[in-house]
Amino acid sequence: MIEIAVLGFGTVGSGVVELIDNNQEWIRRSVPEGIHVKYILDIREFPNSPYADRVVHNIDLITEDPEVKIVCETMGGKEPAFTFSRKALESGKSVCTSNKELVEALGTELMLTAKQNGMSYLFEASVGGGIPILRPLRNSLVQEEITTIGGILNGTTNYILTKMEQEGAAFDDVLKIAQEKGYAERNPEADVEGYDCGRKIAILASLATGRKADYDEIPCEGITKIAAPDFAYAKAIGRAVKLLGIARKLGDGSWSVRTAPFLVPKEHPLYPVSGVFNAVFVHGTMVDDLMFYGRGAGKNPTASAVVSDVVELAMHIGVPLRSAWNEEKLTLANSDLECHRFYIRAAAEKAPALQAAFSSLEQIDLGGQGGPETAAFVTDEISERTFAQCLGEIEVQNVIRLL
Amino acid sequence: MIEIAVLGFGTVGSGVVELIDNNQEWIRRSVPEGIHVKYILDIREFPNSPYADRVVHNIDLITEDPEVKIVCETMGGKEPAFTFSRKALESGKSVCTSNKELVEALGTELMLTAKQNGMSYLFEASVGGGIPILRPLRNSLVQEEITTIGGILNGTTNYILTKMEQEGAAFDDVLKIAQEKGYAERNPEADVEGYDCGRKIAILASLATGRKADYDEIPCEGITKIAAPDFAYAKAIGRAVKLLGIARKLGDGSWSVRTAPFLVPKEHPLYPVSGVFNAVFVHGTMVDDLMFYGRGAGKNPTASAVVSDVVELAMHIGVPLRSAWNEEKLTLANSDLECHRFYIRAAAEKAPALQAAFSSLEQIDLGGQGGPETAAFVTDEISERTFAQCLGEIEVQNVIRLL
Repeated sequence: MIEIAVLGFGTVGSGVVELIDNNQEWIRRSVPEGIHVKYILDIREFPNSPYADRVVHNIDLITEDPEVKIVCETMGGKEPAFTFSRKALESGKSVCTSNKELVEALGTELMLTAKQNGMSYLFEASVGGGIPILRPLRNSLVQEEITTIGGILNGTTNYILTKMEQEGAAFDDVLKIAQEKGYAERNPEADVEGYDCGRKIAILASLATGRKADYDEIPCEGITKIAAPDFAYAKAIGRAVKLLGIARKLGDGSWSVRTAPFLVPKEHPLYPVSGVFNAVFVHGTMVDDLMFYGRGAGKNPTASAVVSDVVELAMHIGVPLRSAWNEEKLTLANSDLECHRFYIRAAAEKAPALQAAFSSLEQIDLGGQGGPETAAFVTDEISERTFAQCLGEIEVQNVIRLL
Repeated sequence: MIEIAVLGFGTVGSGVVELIDNNQEWIRRSVPEGIHVKYILDIREFPNSPYADRVVHNIDLITEDPEVKIVCETMGGKEPAFTFSRKALESGKSVCTSNKELVEALGTELMLTAKQNGMSYLFEASVGGGIPILRPLRNSLVQEEITTIGGILNGTTNYILTKMEQEGAAFDDVLKIAQEKGYAERNPEADVEGYDCGRKIAILASLATGRKADYDEIPCEGITKIAAPDFAYAKAIGRAVKLLGIARKLGDGSWSVRTAPFLVPKEHPLYPVSGVFNAVFVHGTMVDDLMFYGRGAGKNPTASAVVSDVVELAMHIGVPLRSAWNEEKLTLANSDLECHRFYIRAAAEKAPALQAAFSSLEQIDLGGQGGPETAAFVTDEISERTFAQCLGEIEVQNVIRLL
């Protein structure tokens, strides 16, 4: 048996423990000796859990036990997750995690610690929940020059946008339903402001380039300004509103990384991805377009991804796996120079000013259904800077980029 | 440098050689010593190719050269591909291939030969073209109990069905266009009769279960009976016509495997997959629904998948990889007992007979657009046997299962 420890017995941690128990038969196809959870670290007691006797409260019990080969960190947050993960790596245990916040902020440091100690640090579950995406990038697409990566990386906001579109409901009302269903947190800021999506695209961009993209430098917009008319105008031009995290290699070799709502055309594989599902789109110069689709969150899918890391680590005891990226920083392109077509929604009275400000605007016709008080336009492809200069002081209701 | 040989300098083989040359920079991230094509085996000469000096005509030159560690078989067909692959494995070279016909028919034997010689036999490119699917199944989903696998596995037929749907065109006309565009072979039988799709679902079912599903036992229907009205009726019930290869675990633990056109509902992730694209759908008990989407054919995507195998083999020289399945045979469920809902299209005059034969039929209403001469119905969920018994001698125009 390969002994492991799970840090944090919350939703994901308990899913990991249960999956390893329940699916031992399948796991043994790849790890014939089997995998066993020896310790569960948590500050709480779980007297009614069948795993109560494995719960411990002191990390040293785990790091000092030479039988433990793998540590799963499913605590979330930066501390004490970082200190515990580093300690585990320094004690000769490989570590895997579902903790995107930690991976984005301190993953580079933990991968370096892993390397220095001949260990591995994996984090498949940190992006796309149950979707296998980091391992395919690392194992199946190394021969590719990837020029675009990203997609629908946050299930909460995709659920909200889907509901708003299908039911014509307002943002606040749908958010309330999502909170009642447990799809959104009581404090939804990290989801609806795009921060969660931003962390995930930072991780994907780092993986695709091998250099660390810094979350703090990535322009980040959420979905709080999206309103019912935006869906109607989007539909009229054959598009849907999606919150995307997207990283693209530009002509000069630099990378642009951004989190924002986009109007996605019908022909694009991301267009039909709805509800709580996530999808990661990848373009490689040889393989062309790929998309990986699945559940981006939830106890079992996330636990499945964590256990896929456990299995890979169990198959590579004593064989350190290549770090996902190195310590070099990915210098992002000047986002002001990035070019897009922009959708603008404004009060109808602003139409003349907008038409005067932009050399060429295409008005979206709702066939009279949009009401007389609102107008919407699409610009030519122009840079962010030119767009801001043309718009100047004209007051508009919303602006969304076209994919 | 890790030296390799490529057998067959056709479309895929030349793509492999070019990709390894052009993307050496990316490959070296995983294989720091680099990969080099030492030999290209073909019966032809290629005097104008930049690789002319590497072309050889005798397999022994390759199998007897101890420098060659990996052989890519991109010849297609069973012979001499099988003999050459076995010889390479017996000579201590690992082998990878894009040859689905060979993998389906003799892959079990080649994996056994590989195992006996401490070598590996990989075939990522044999299903789904450039889509990473076999390696994710082997490396990212081992902890899952997979209960459904399959999808759109043949780009030619998906292109034909998409064109028929979009343009209301007849099968024969679209086939002709597909042949002119190079999407369909001059002899299109393997594609349009579903044989290619059948081989691929046999491979996927074998991978998911670890036991060999036999192509000859898989019920196989093509798309030659699909006609314009089927798309109209499908649309009226929110569905699209797709040729699927699909393997499902039944309640009693047995597996049903089938290739046939299906009516796929709008909510299903396979519904929007159109044109030459392929998509593999996977359901695992923990991870829930997954889909892997990309180009199922074409020189560069297929070459990319072959090279992903080369890279994995180069990273595992001296470390044999687990066989994808063992020698045990997968006993298929009795396909007569499989339950589906069935769509029936018939001359309008057959409606009373059909309604008398089936206890419950739902008629599809095209709002008068279907013309008076045709009627279409959907049955309840019934077994294949019950369906055949109820239908009896009633003459119908087409029958399609509902997914």
